[in-house]
Amino acid sequence: MAGAKAADPERRDSRTILFDATAALLSERSTIEVSLSEIAQRSGLNSALIKYYFGSKEGLLLALLERVAERAMADLAHLVGLDIPAEQKLRIHIGGIINTYYRSPYVNRLINYMIVRSDKASSERVAQIFVEPMIAAYRAIVDQGVAEGAFRPLDPGMLYYSVVGACEHIFYASYSLPTTLGLSELTEEVRQQYARHVSDLVFHGVLAHPAREA
Amino acid sequence: MAGAKAADPERRDSRTILFDATAALLSERSTIEVSLSEIAQRSGLNSALIKYYFGSKEGLLLALLERVAERAMADLAHLVGLDIPAEQKLRIHIGGIINTYYRSPYVNRLINYMIVRSDKASSERVAQIFVEPMIAAYRAIVDQGVAEGAFRPLDPGMLYYSVVGACEHIFYASYSLPTTLGLSELTEEVRQQYARHVSDLVFHGVLAHPAREA
Repeated sequence: MAGAKAADPERRDSRTILFDATAALLSERSTIEVSLSEIAQRSGLNSALIKYYFGSKEGLLLALLERVAERAMADLAHLVGLDIPAEQKLRIHIGGIINTYYRSPYVNRLINYMIVRSDKASSERVAQIFVEPMIAAYRAIVDQGVAEGAFRPLDPGMLYYSVVGACEHIFYASYSLPTTLGLSELTEEVRQQYARHVSDLVFHGVLAHPAREA
Repeated sequence: MAGAKAADPERRDSRTILFDATAALLSERSTIEVSLSEIAQRSGLNSALIKYYFGSKEGLLLALLERVAERAMADLAHLVGLDIPAEQKLRIHIGGIINTYYRSPYVNRLINYMIVRSDKASSERVAQIFVEPMIAAYRAIVDQGVAEGAFRPLDPGMLYYSVVGACEHIFYASYSLPTTLGLSELTEEVRQQYARHVSDLVFHGVLAHPAREA
C-alpha cells in the first residue's frame, strides 16, 4: 500500500525540495546569481534532477516564480470574491503585496531577471501569470468601488501600475535603504510602517486638508 | 588656432557620439542587450575607442547612466530652489520623472541591469548618483510642504519610494502594456494621462469624497 503511489509523491517532494532550496539561496543574497551546483548542494539532490524536471536553471527559476504567482493570485481571487467594501479590498491587497515581497524578497528580483533577459517568452509568461489576474482583480475592485460611490472613476490599468509600483519599489531598490531610510535592511516594523504609508497615500494623498469634492 | 584645442573637443565629441549611439540602440530594443560591435558600427567609431574611454561595455553603460543622472538631478535641484509652493514642486517633479522615462525608456532597464548584476559597486554607484540627490530633494520638498501647512507629516524616504515606484512601474513593466491598457507601446497621450493619474493619486487618493481632516 505505502509504495503504491510512491512515484508521484516522490516527484512532488523532489520538486518542492528544489524550490525550497532555491528560494532559501535567493533570499540570502541580494542578486539572482545562484548556480545549479549550489542548488544541488543545498537541496541534497543531484543537479541532473534539476535538468530532468526543469530543463535548466532558468526553467527552475520560472517554475518557482509560477508557484509563487499561483498562491498569490489564488489569495487575490479569494479577496475579490469576499462580501466586503471595495475600499477594504484595496487596503488588504496593498498589505498583501508588501507582505509577499517582504517574505520573499527574491520574487521581485526574479521577475526583474525574467524581463531583463532577452528572451521574449519569459516576459510574456510573467505577464500571463502575474499581470492578467491582477488586472482582472483591479477591474473588479474599481467597478465595485465606483458602484458603491466610494471611489472616483479610475482607470484600472493605471491604478494597477501606480499601486503596485508604490508597493514594490522599496524592495526593488533595496540597495538604496541606507541612503533613504538609514537602514541596512527592511525590518518587520518598517514593513508595517510602509504598508500604512502606501495605504494612506492611496486613500488620502499627501495633503493635510484635502478639498471635499462634489 | 582651430587646432590648438583640438584634442579636448575631439575627445568630448567621440564620447558624445558613443553615448548617442548607445542611447539610440538601447531605445530601439526592449532589453539592454547591445554589443560593443553594434555600438561601434552605429557610431562609426572603433570599438577600441570604447575600451580606451570606458574600459568596457559596462563602463560605457554606467557612464551613460551617469550622464542622464547628472542632467536629471541638476533639473531637480533647480526645481527645489524655485520660489513656488511645495505642492507645485511635487507635481512638476512627478511629471518630470514620467517624462524622463518616456523620453529615455532605456534608463529604467539600465538601472535595473546595474542592480541585478552581482557587482556591488554598480548598485552603490546607482544609489550615489540617483538616490542621494533624490532623497535630499524629497526632504526639502516635504519640509517646505509641511511648513506651508499644505502637506500632512510624511516620511521623505517612504514618500520617495512610493512616488518614484508609482511613476516608473508603467515603464519597467512595459511588457505588460497589451494586458493592462490594451496598447503595444506607450504613446504621448498615454504618458500625459498617466502623469495626471499619478498626480491625482498622490494629491487626492482614490476616494470620491475624501474626509476633511482637522
